Amino acid sequence: MREKVWKWMELNREEAISFLQKLVQEGSVQGQEEGVQKLVRDRLIEMGLEVDYWVPDDEEFLNHPYFCATRKDFSKSPNVVGKWEGTGGGKSLVLNGHIDVVPSGDLNQWEQDPYSGHIKDGKMYGRGVTDMKGGNLSLLLALQCLKDLGVSLKGDVLFHSVIEEESGGAGTLAAILRGHTADAALIPEPTNMKIFPSQQGSMWFRVNVVGRAAHGGTRYEGVSSIEKVMLVVKKIQQLEHVRNSRVTSPLYKNTPIPLPINIGTINGGSWPSSVPDEVTIEGRIGVGPEESLEEVKVEFERVLAEIDDEWLNDHPLKIEWFGAQWLPGAIDVEHELMGILQNRFKEVTRKEPVIEASPWGTDGGLLTQVGNTPSIVIGPGVTSVAHYPNEYIEIDKIFEAAQIFTLVIYDWCGGDNL
Amino acid sequence: MREKVWKWMELNREEAISFLQKLVQEGSVQGQEEGVQKLVRDRLIEMGLEVDYWVPDDEEFLNHPYFCATRKDFSKSPNVVGKWEGTGGGKSLVLNGHIDVVPSGDLNQWEQDPYSGHIKDGKMYGRGVTDMKGGNLSLLLALQCLKDLGVSLKGDVLFHSVIEEESGGAGTLAAILRGHTADAALIPEPTNMKIFPSQQGSMWFRVNVVGRAAHGGTRYEGVSSIEKVMLVVKKIQQLEHVRNSRVTSPLYKNTPIPLPINIGTINGGSWPSSVPDEVTIEGRIGVGPEESLEEVKVEFERVLAEIDDEWLNDHPLKIEWFGAQWLPGAIDVEHELMGILQNRFKEVTRKEPVIEASPWGTDGGLLTQVGNTPSIVIGPGVTSVAHYPNEYIEIDKIFEAAQIFTLVIYDWCGGDNL
Repeated sequence: MREKVWKWMELNREEAISFLQKLVQEGSVQGQEEGVQKLVRDRLIEMGLEVDYWVPDDEEFLNHPYFCATRKDFSKSPNVVGKWEGTGGGKSLVLNGHIDVVPSGDLNQWEQDPYSGHIKDGKMYGRGVTDMKGGNLSLLLALQCLKDLGVSLKGDVLFHSVIEEESGGAGTLAAILRGHTADAALIPEPTNMKIFPSQQGSMWFRVNVVGRAAHGGTRYEGVSSIEKVMLVVKKIQQLEHVRNSRVTSPLYKNTPIPLPINIGTINGGSWPSSVPDEVTIEGRIGVGPEESLEEVKVEFERVLAEIDDEWLNDHPLKIEWFGAQWLPGAIDVEHELMGILQNRFKEVTRKEPVIEASPWGTDGGLLTQVGNTPSIVIGPGVTSVAHYPNEYIEIDKIFEAAQIFTLVIYDWCGGDNL
Repeated sequence: MREKVWKWMELNREEAISFLQKLVQEGSVQGQEEGVQKLVRDRLIEMGLEVDYWVPDDEEFLNHPYFCATRKDFSKSPNVVGKWEGTGGGKSLVLNGHIDVVPSGDLNQWEQDPYSGHIKDGKMYGRGVTDMKGGNLSLLLALQCLKDLGVSLKGDVLFHSVIEEESGGAGTLAAILRGHTADAALIPEPTNMKIFPSQQGSMWFRVNVVGRAAHGGTRYEGVSSIEKVMLVVKKIQQLEHVRNSRVTSPLYKNTPIPLPINIGTINGGSWPSSVPDEVTIEGRIGVGPEESLEEVKVEFERVLAEIDDEWLNDHPLKIEWFGAQWLPGAIDVEHELMGILQNRFKEVTRKEPVIEASPWGTDGGLLTQVGNTPSIVIGPGVTSVAHYPNEYIEIDKIFEAAQIFTLVIYDWCGGDNL
């Protein structure tokens, strides 16, 4: 069977590369996903899938507690789901990939146009090619291969081409609320083919510390918010230590700080010779696979309230949770899909898979926690080039991933006729 | 004699108040001092003083090591010095007052126009009325009173109406370089009639700390500049402690921190979920009356270089001295002018004078260190309303100060015919 799949990949290689170029060339930063989604929709229709193509705008979606986006109007940003209905009695699978890409950034740092999709030394270059249009292509190839080889599946396969992953996951949330869930999910985010059965969630916090202004020459008449924020930074460091001392999962054995708390910005004071009466810090707290966002918020706020300082007792910190959030996600490492994936990985690559926890969130958190669809993240792109100028993907890796995915879908969904 | 002076003040009160209103109404923020300086010039000419009215622009001035200004063009900002030449054989005196005012700030916080000069309950309101046009008026009244009473003086009196005190003292520097110095000086900055024989100098510093950026989810791959700046803040706190433990002058006995180091601003990082690769702090360091700016800079830089941290050893702090600076100034508390001033103060006010060190710099630092003219700061305004909305001065205090100054000039410069 592996050989049939491999042969199919070889035969369809040129066309597939050309299709990926088209996906990259379309671009799809936030608000401009329509063109590329039409390409995907048409591809799914050609394959014979039942296609749901819609602009998310219903009230349940917009008012959902995990709705997290910088906008409420998605009229130029349709979601696409293609469904391959199984013959019945099998396990269903979501194949989830986001179609939105982050902005290209400083053009001077790109050697060629960010949307060129040009190929050099076996690599295709372009914004979004690794994060994660290359991964999406490997899913599409797997489906097409199974179709072309005349395979029938017992379980349903749902291919998600979703918007908004880069800004909070509203596209996957919309797909879940529309019922496009399954028994498990595969998400080919760029992991360099590492297997991530659990993904760290995260939230952003903002802590505002007030002091009392005074002239710098009589600074003892004021209260320095910079001195006070140092207490906050120290307390956050202690909290990070405590939180990580509770992490025992072997998935984190190579990770120095499994659940980091990053203080990313600090800004305060307005004049060198005035006592600063306000400082604000902003940061990101990692949320463990077994944790809820809510309990992490409560712990953070409780610990910061414990700072032993008279001034802060009378002038409590203002804590906000703002901006993006990603739910953590996890699948049991003993889950059947984990076993199938590892076996097929070894068969195709002839290597032992690396199994770790991801240090960042994916739409797998929403699929797991809201969609009741435990998710595994594994994909052919490379994290280190995602979001950077000259983003690229090794083309061979896409086909390697596509082969693995073909065989995994076959096994999990109960394939036949091969 | 006191009675003659007092009677003169009563007689000339209304006209004097009206003149102060004109000084306030003219305004004189940086770059707009010409109108008010013409008023002062004409007043000095009327009194019969020899007037030097000039725009500072010579090379010696512009290139002087203590030239500190945000501009080099003073064409709309003349300096004025009026000289009352003595009959000879007496000690000379500089009467120094700056004519520039700080901007009015948020107009909504002013109950009336900042340049109204309106009077209510014995107080005149307006930007600059306490800092320090009211003080300047008391000097002018003292001179006019002595003239009107037919006094002759042995020593010269030089009245300075200078620009740029609020931004580094370039006006007084120009007057000094033009030779307008004397055996001692009086500066009626707003001290609420406290006597400040020494004034704290100050400088502004900027310290830049670099880290290494990384994603917040893998923050251990980066180096947080916020963590590193905490070491710097702590070291600066230690330095402040060491510096103040050396201060023994009784003038500071009521001052919790004689020479404060104020960290006024902190800014760094650009994204909540990125490790911050740069943080900058800015602050003000107080310079003791006996210290030079240079030795304080050297100590600050030396101590910060001692921070024991491997990363900072490899990535040294960038330290800049920027913006404004004020030289410290001091006169011996046993100086003859101190004795005269205290006696006349007691005589006029029937109170014991309060003698302290000022927590901020004045042009007295330049007069002392560059002009070899030891200076005493005492004036009728109130520090707490300087630079604030609804700045005011108690009008009676101006005349009380004018009386004291009249008698002090008479004593110091060797008055006769009264």
